[in-house]
Amino acid sequence: MKKFSQEEIEVYLKVLDFSKIEGGLLPVVVQDIKTNQILMLAFSNEEAIRKTLETGYAYFYSRSRKMLWKKGETSGHVQEVEQVITDCDSDSLLLKVKQKGAACHKGYYTCFYNEFDQGDLKIISKKVFDPKEVYKK
Amino acid sequence: MKKFSQEEIEVYLKVLDFSKIEGGLLPVVVQDIKTNQILMLAFSNEEAIRKTLETGYAYFYSRSRKMLWKKGETSGHVQEVEQVITDCDSDSLLLKVKQKGAACHKGYYTCFYNEFDQGDLKIISKKVFDPKEVYKK
Repeated sequence: MKKFSQEEIEVYLKVLDFSKIEGGLLPVVVQDIKTNQILMLAFSNEEAIRKTLETGYAYFYSRSRKMLWKKGETSGHVQEVEQVITDCDSDSLLLKVKQKGAACHKGYYTCFYNEFDQGDLKIISKKVFDPKEVYKK
Repeated sequence: MKKFSQEEIEVYLKVLDFSKIEGGLLPVVVQDIKTNQILMLAFSNEEAIRKTLETGYAYFYSRSRKMLWKKGETSGHVQEVEQVITDCDSDSLLLKVKQKGAACHKGYYTCFYNEFDQGDLKIISKKVFDPKEVYKK
């Protein structure tokens, strides 16, 4: 798991361009470091990126709930960050992670499980858990 | 290369949720189908997705120029789309593509070439071409 010092974090935050999406958000792609599968895409603000870099766990910003969230907080399906990569325009991030359990709240290993195929959606990911069991009160 | 009929395209466009980003945009992750590398992240509106599905080549919407663009239009570094996958919330897309040349306008194979490392940015992708040569008038 990769964690960074406060000094390092300040350097990285200055590199990133938060100006392109209202609310200072960046799209963040999450990739499984073992299989190279894309697990999910979420958005982060500066606070979420700071928490991710400080703790080594993936945090994001929920646009619907308007708050910081730790991936896997309820389910235990956390993402341990191994590599943090930005792109040529410094306006998006790629996190390479070790995924505990599965990435998708619907029980699939990856959120990208619906392939456009012959006028329909074909499920192309394994169902790993039953959401009713994992998210029960 | 995967192309879709008008009937199929209408089905897929109805599935997608364009409401979450101003201007009706979706983030689109592009992944190399051979190496599974993430090549880039861009945004598409309905028109860009329609063009992509009709032609089999990746099109996006440029937020700075406020217009549709075909990836590789100037450089020849087009992306042939092989798989189109959406996520659990239908608010982002994953295109698995065959990349001609290189994805990044700065000459690297992938746009995600800057890794956060020891308080600095470390270049982790190969430089494949010289932008001055490819983009000269």
